[in-house]
Amino acid sequence: MLGHNSYGKSGVRLLKVERAHSHHTIRDLTVDLALEGDFVATHVKGDNTAVLPTDTMKNVVYAKARELTIGEPEDFAAALATHLLGSNTTATVARVTVAEHTWRRLDLAGTSHDHAFEGGSTELRIARARAAKGEELALSGGIDRLRVLKSAQSAFSGFPRDRYTTLRETEDRILATSVTAEWTYATNTTDFGGHFRDVRGALLETFAQHDSRSVQHTLYAMGEAALARCGAISEIHITMPNAHHLLVDLSPFALENPNEIFVPTSEPYGLISATIRRG
Amino acid sequence: MLGHNSYGKSGVRLLKVERAHSHHTIRDLTVDLALEGDFVATHVKGDNTAVLPTDTMKNVVYAKARELTIGEPEDFAAALATHLLGSNTTATVARVTVAEHTWRRLDLAGTSHDHAFEGGSTELRIARARAAKGEELALSGGIDRLRVLKSAQSAFSGFPRDRYTTLRETEDRILATSVTAEWTYATNTTDFGGHFRDVRGALLETFAQHDSRSVQHTLYAMGEAALARCGAISEIHITMPNAHHLLVDLSPFALENPNEIFVPTSEPYGLISATIRRG
Amino acid sequence: MLGHNSYGKSGVRLLKVERAHSHHTIRDLTVDLALEGDFVATHVKGDNTAVLPTDTMKNVVYAKARELTIGEPEDFAAALATHLLGSNTTATVARVTVAEHTWRRLDLAGTSHDHAFEGGSTELRIARARAAKGEELALSGGIDRLRVLKSAQSAFSGFPRDRYTTLRETEDRILATSVTAEWTYATNTTDFGGHFRDVRGALLETFAQHDSRSVQHTLYAMGEAALARCGAISEIHITMPNAHHLLVDLSPFALENPNEIFVPTSEPYGLISATIRRG
Amino acid sequence: MLGHNSYGKSGVRLLKVERAHSHHTIRDLTVDLALEGDFVATHVKGDNTAVLPTDTMKNVVYAKARELTIGEPEDFAAALATHLLGSNTTATVARVTVAEHTWRRLDLAGTSHDHAFEGGSTELRIARARAAKGEELALSGGIDRLRVLKSAQSAFSGFPRDRYTTLRETEDRILATSVTAEWTYATNTTDFGGHFRDVRGALLETFAQHDSRSVQHTLYAMGEAALARCGAISEIHITMPNAHHLLVDLSPFALENPNEIFVPTSEPYGLISATIRRG
Repeated sequence: MLGHNSYGKSGVRLLKVERAHSHHTIRDLTVDLALEGDFVATHVKGDNTAVLPTDTMKNVVYAKARELTIGEPEDFAAALATHLLGSNTTATVARVTVAEHTWRRLDLAGTSHDHAFEGGSTELRIARARAAKGEELALSGGIDRLRVLKSAQSAFSGFPRDRYTTLRETEDRILATSVTAEWTYATNTTDFGGHFRDVRGALLETFAQHDSRSVQHTLYAMGEAALARCGAISEIHITMPNAHHLLVDLSPFALENPNEIFVPTSEPYGLISATIRRG
Repeated sequence: MLGHNSYGKSGVRLLKVERAHSHHTIRDLTVDLALEGDFVATHVKGDNTAVLPTDTMKNVVYAKARELTIGEPEDFAAALATHLLGSNTTATVARVTVAEHTWRRLDLAGTSHDHAFEGGSTELRIARARAAKGEELALSGGIDRLRVLKSAQSAFSGFPRDRYTTLRETEDRILATSVTAEWTYATNTTDFGGHFRDVRGALLETFAQHDSRSVQHTLYAMGEAALARCGAISEIHITMPNAHHLLVDLSPFALENPNEIFVPTSEPYGLISATIRRG
Repeated sequence: MLGHNSYGKSGVRLLKVERAHSHHTIRDLTVDLALEGDFVATHVKGDNTAVLPTDTMKNVVYAKARELTIGEPEDFAAALATHLLGSNTTATVARVTVAEHTWRRLDLAGTSHDHAFEGGSTELRIARARAAKGEELALSGGIDRLRVLKSAQSAFSGFPRDRYTTLRETEDRILATSVTAEWTYATNTTDFGGHFRDVRGALLETFAQHDSRSVQHTLYAMGEAALARCGAISEIHITMPNAHHLLVDLSPFALENPNEIFVPTSEPYGLISATIRRG
Repeated sequence: MLGHNSYGKSGVRLLKVERAHSHHTIRDLTVDLALEGDFVATHVKGDNTAVLPTDTMKNVVYAKARELTIGEPEDFAAALATHLLGSNTTATVARVTVAEHTWRRLDLAGTSHDHAFEGGSTELRIARARAAKGEELALSGGIDRLRVLKSAQSAFSGFPRDRYTTLRETEDRILATSVTAEWTYATNTTDFGGHFRDVRGALLETFAQHDSRSVQHTLYAMGEAALARCGAISEIHITMPNAHHLLVDLSPFALENPNEIFVPTSEPYGLISATIRRG
């Protein structure tokens, strides 16, 4: 028996050059698209009469990128999801994710260049749209791979100890992570750019200023600040791996290490996540 | 307000050498562990009195790997999840995933070597355990990154065409994918090794022999075969990206290309997933 | 002033299906191609009259893959390098590298399948050809990313100690590496497949059987064995990173660790390389 | 017979927190170290009496990071190479590479934060030192993974066409690359920070402003500008892959594509490199 199923195209890469005379803006996007619905005949009998090819979905991304102004990632995701749902009578749900890669305009002697850009950080801005037959379009915004580190105001102590505990308590450690956050828009809002800047600003500001007792403690404060700053979002889900920086034991070399020399590690890592919503 | 939350340690790497005299077996595992429960004070007040450190979770993996026979990945996941839940009075759920990496014993002149091994494929065997207070332990098995390709018996035609469709119908294409499957054990079963071999065998055999009309069609047949072969599983969820191999247009060079020369691509890719369960 | 320069196309991906009736063989290759020569006008004046486009180089790979039998990677590399040098009057050197990815034919109930395959390990077979005007074609063979591990017969002791040494001597450690080897063909040889199997066999056999005092010691023995086994090669260059597996200290948990529980690590890693040639 | 050989430790990761009261600076480095010399007994007999362990090399990085001011990457590389050569009587050459990862200080409401940082781009600053017995220390500087893109002033035309050419001439394409450059210091210079900024500035400025006829043309201009701007370097080697952005054919959808919609691709890629030195 066929249960939940989904199909689509992922990893559709797109660069659009938006030209205002000689001043260019570039939009570098990765788009994922998927359909859900009653595709029993497809799965069981190999009947493709209802299967809009994933290759067509890809073509739609490029054609719509030309036909439309891309606008905010949420706008483009919404347009694609709506089009996709309308393209297929069997599908009952269309889902689209748009991830925007960051580029920075080159700055030459204090003047920003018209058409030359430098690759940004790993950070991605994410937007998701879900169009379902008979339902309102649902939109969410997000951020991914936002790497941050603080070298003060981070502690971890007061935890329980058992037979398997070797970790030392610390009042001063490195806190490093790569923030993933996704928020749900509560109301009929359109200022997605403003909301993104508000949420991102609240997350970063709180990360920097919070007197952290644990990753959970800071993650929660960041979520609370995002909800406080941006009234248009109803809840936020945040994931923060703990990218451990281990204090090096320099005592064999007759040296002290007053929280100065650390080994950044990639494995294993803590993994902390929570949803924070309005009370 | 704090919603669903989870914390733990991921990417715990472990190699265990099991020695029967001079004949060695190696177990190469990556373990992820997480706890869920009422950690409101942790998040809101920075109170760590209930927070079993993720560093302790990591230590538990190494200590248990020494104290216990690892057995099947499901057995080790179950032991870790049960221990973890018992280690923390605040946690109500413990989740553990064990991924086993493949190594092949070196074969020298027809004799398999006692202690020398060659790295296997990308394939991972996966087991998950979920221990919850007052509930029975839930176990699932799985397979990940199992790369397969067939160069015949794969078609895609009869699909709808609209303004954005350019794909040609084909009765003979390359079908290449990386299979991810996860199945839920229905009954109190213990022969996890046998079930894994049954499910894996059914998946591979069906992939090879199926007369494929689409990825969905073959995915469903694979799931159906797994359920038919292995009575101990109640449902299976399969994900199969379509790793497109594009036929090269050689006509500019006055050459035909009778389905012989292809470009393997990584982006974009189709993404097909479904759950198949007993009717 | 322009010094040494080179240009070309890298990462040309190709899958060729070789059909003998219904029995298929697949060849999965990545090809890199480059030209060198007096391209001063190109660099200094932007004069492209001598610049065979790298896009054309890519097309040549696909056309030649159709026109020719691919044969051994060395044969295909040689054909491409020779063609490339002949395509351009300014170029004095053409270099081509062919890397072959491994697939294993699916085995169903003891019978190997005609057209279904499973992804192999990370191992690559490498061939390089260098065609230069007025010189004989130079060919080399190689192997890359051949991951191996031995859990006995590996020691590291007797090394010097200074103020910065903390490593313990050991007579029994895990030796794990990813072998890269490249060998130069000495004479006008054509049996590249046989040579590859001879060299690979000698490398693996020696890795398994050698009583290792250090990575250097085993690397040298492997190179010596390859030269002894295969008379057609004049020298071999081997690189072997030391993928450290650290013995876990279980004493805090009142457990011994008799070389049983290890942490595989990826960073930092030892890096050992040497050329071994006939005396 | 043993030919050229080398051994060492790679991927040594280090984060140093430099504290001026509450104002922190972080240095995030990856260090590679290697020794060369007459290690015949090591390779042939397994004699380790001359083998300074690579683990000791790693320890030296952490101890020296504490004992010294890190300064410019060139300074730290020089100190490590000099120490390493002095640590081993058998070694005749010590090579050290230091790669510095970029972090940007968080800016909150126009004020830069004392101890909170955001991950930078993929760009790395590179320094290499080579200490050899009886020779002067040799130093080079470099840059790696500097991703840049220009959406105007890039053409590729006037190239030769043959039977395998399908590429269209273009006067307006996307030029995208990831710059790797390494330069050799000519004289006894110490202002490595100033030189790095000069070279990097010249590279970026020229990339942005050059009227490009080909990657080679722009690469050469960038090298020339670096030599002109920075008198302390004697030559520069630049590698620039051509990260092709393909113009999408929208004509099947009855749309024009006036250089607006592109597909960024990762494979295959052009690969261009050259050394530019003073005449």
